[in-house]
Amino acid sequence: MKAWQFTNTNEPLVLNEVEDPTAGPGEVVLEMKAAGLCHSDVGLLEDEGWLSLLAKRPITIGHENAGVVAEVGEGVTEFKVGDRVGVCPTTAAGAPGYSFDGGFAPKMLVAAEALVPLPDNVDFVNGAAATDAGMTSHAAVITQGGVKEGDKVGIIGMGGLGQIGAVVAMLAGAEVYVAEINEKVWPMAKELGAKDVKKDIKEFEDVSFDVIVDFAGFGQTTADAVDIIRRDGTVVVVGMGRLESTINTKNLILNQCRLIGSNGGTKEDVAGVYDYMATGKLNPQITTISFDEIPEGIEKLKNGEVVGRLVATF
Amino acid sequence: MKAWQFTNTNEPLVLNEVEDPTAGPGEVVLEMKAAGLCHSDVGLLEDEGWLSLLAKRPITIGHENAGVVAEVGEGVTEFKVGDRVGVCPTTAAGAPGYSFDGGFAPKMLVAAEALVPLPDNVDFVNGAAATDAGMTSHAAVITQGGVKEGDKVGIIGMGGLGQIGAVVAMLAGAEVYVAEINEKVWPMAKELGAKDVKKDIKEFEDVSFDVIVDFAGFGQTTADAVDIIRRDGTVVVVGMGRLESTINTKNLILNQCRLIGSNGGTKEDVAGVYDYMATGKLNPQITTISFDEIPEGIEKLKNGEVVGRLVATF
Repeated sequence: MKAWQFTNTNEPLVLNEVEDPTAGPGEVVLEMKAAGLCHSDVGLLEDEGWLSLLAKRPITIGHENAGVVAEVGEGVTEFKVGDRVGVCPTTAAGAPGYSFDGGFAPKMLVAAEALVPLPDNVDFVNGAAATDAGMTSHAAVITQGGVKEGDKVGIIGMGGLGQIGAVVAMLAGAEVYVAEINEKVWPMAKELGAKDVKKDIKEFEDVSFDVIVDFAGFGQTTADAVDIIRRDGTVVVVGMGRLESTINTKNLILNQCRLIGSNGGTKEDVAGVYDYMATGKLNPQITTISFDEIPEGIEKLKNGEVVGRLVATF
Repeated sequence: MKAWQFTNTNEPLVLNEVEDPTAGPGEVVLEMKAAGLCHSDVGLLEDEGWLSLLAKRPITIGHENAGVVAEVGEGVTEFKVGDRVGVCPTTAAGAPGYSFDGGFAPKMLVAAEALVPLPDNVDFVNGAAATDAGMTSHAAVITQGGVKEGDKVGIIGMGGLGQIGAVVAMLAGAEVYVAEINEKVWPMAKELGAKDVKKDIKEFEDVSFDVIVDFAGFGQTTADAVDIIRRDGTVVVVGMGRLESTINTKNLILNQCRLIGSNGGTKEDVAGVYDYMATGKLNPQITTISFDEIPEGIEKLKNGEVVGRLVATF
C-alpha cells in the first residue's frame, strides 16, 4: 500500500510503497476512514526537536485516526471485524505517527487497547477529529475541571479547543461565559450558547465562577482567572500562549483555589467527546480533503489558511 | 468574671469585669483550660484593618481555645457537662474573639457546632494550639494535599506550621523531604524524621514528589515546586512570604500538576490533628504562661521572643 512517510526535518513527505500490515497478538488492523492533520505535523516537518520522539524513520505519520476494524489478532476480544472505532493517541500503546506507523495510509496497525468505539451516528471525520482537540478539551473541562450540571464556567479563548470546550461544558449542564479578545468571534460564541461574551474574564465581576478553563494561557489570563474564581473553585490552564504567569498567591490562598495544568487526555475523554457528538450538539468546524492532498493540507495549516480542523478521508 | 478585652487599635488590652455567660439553645459554656496566643493578636492590637472583622467592641479576644463543657443549652445532644473539647475557629458559628467573645476569660460561650472532642490523652495546652496552626497544617497536607501512605512529600519551610505539617505527613505514612533555607533548623528536621534536608526543593532532583507543601510561599519556592513536582502531582501553597509567584505554566501544563491554595481548615482538620497528637508523636513546641501574663505574652510575640506556640493556662 502507499503511505505518506516522514523521512527527515525539512524534507517533504514521501508517498512510499510499504507492506500491508497484519495483526499480531493484541493488535488490530484498521481500514482507515479518516485521518486528521494537526499543527504538530507542521512542527515535525520543520523543527528537528521532534526527531527524538520518533521510534523509527521513515515513519508513516498521522495521529488523529478513525476507521473500521479489518483484522483482529490473537487475544483481541473487545473488538471484531467491522467495528467502527477511533484511536486514542495517548495510551500505553504509544502515539500513532510517533511510536509506530500512523494513519496517513489506507491501513494502520494498532494495539486494541488504544481503540475507542465510535457511536453509529458519529461519522468518521468527527471520530478522527475528536481524538486530539476533542480529547484535550474534554480532559480540561470535564476530567481536570470537574465541570458538572449547574456550574458557572468561564472559557478563556475561543480558538479550536476553546470552542469545543465551551460546548462540552454546556452539554455537561453548565452556564458558560466566554472571554475572547477578538470581537469578531463573539457572535459565534453567542450562537454556540454562551450566556455572555466579554474581552476579559475579569469583566465578569458579578459571576461566581466554579471553574475557569484558560485555553489561551497568556500569563495574565491565568492570573486573572485565579483572581476572579470563587473560593474552592478550579482554574484549568491548557493554552501555552505564554510560558509563564505571575500569580497573585495571596488570592490563590485566600480563594483556596486549584490551579491545574491539563495536557492531553485519555480514552475516557475520547469516549466522552463521542458521547457528546452523538447528541448532535457538538459539531466542531471541519474541512475535509482527500488522501492525495495531505502534503498540501499541511502546507495550508502552516500558512494559516485552514478554518477549523483539517481531516483527510479515504 | 474578668476578661482580657480589646477596645481599640493601639490601646492595651483591658482586664474588664464582664457577666458570666449562660448557654442559650444550641450553645455551651466552656470552663476555659487553655487559650493560645497568636501573631494575629499582635496584628489586631496594631493595625486598624482588623477592626472591620470584629462583631462588637469591647470584645474578649482569644481564638485558640480548649476547655471543659460546664453548661449545655437546650437542644445540645452531642456534648454533656464534663466533656473535654477544643473549639474550631472556622465554623459557621463564627470565630471566637472576632464574631463573639473569645477565650481570654475563665468562661466562654460558644455554639456546640464549633466543638471538637479532645481525646483523653491529649492535654488542653495541645488541644488549644491544635485549633489554629495544627488545623492549618493538617488542612494543607491532608485535606488539600491528599497526602497518603507511601507518598513522597516535600515540605518547604520548617517554621511553626511546616514542623507540624512535616510530622503530620510522616504520621500519614509519607516519606518527607524538607527544604529549609536556615541551616540551623536542619538538625531538628532530621530529628523529627525527615529523610533529607536541603536548602532548596530543586536540589531534590532524584525525588519524584507526589505532593509538595510550600509553607514559606516566597514566590520562587512555589515556582520551584511546580517545576520539580511529578506528573499529576500536587503543590499546596500555604505561606504568604511574598504575595505573588511567577509560575512556569509550561511545566504546570506538561506536569499536569495541581497548584492549590490552602487557608484555614475545618473541624475535621482539628479532629485529625487531635488523632495524631493522641499517638504521642505530634508534639509541637509550646511555651505556657498564666492568664495574667497574656498582655506581656502578646508583647513577646511581637518582639519575636517566643519559641513555638504560646498558650495561656487557667
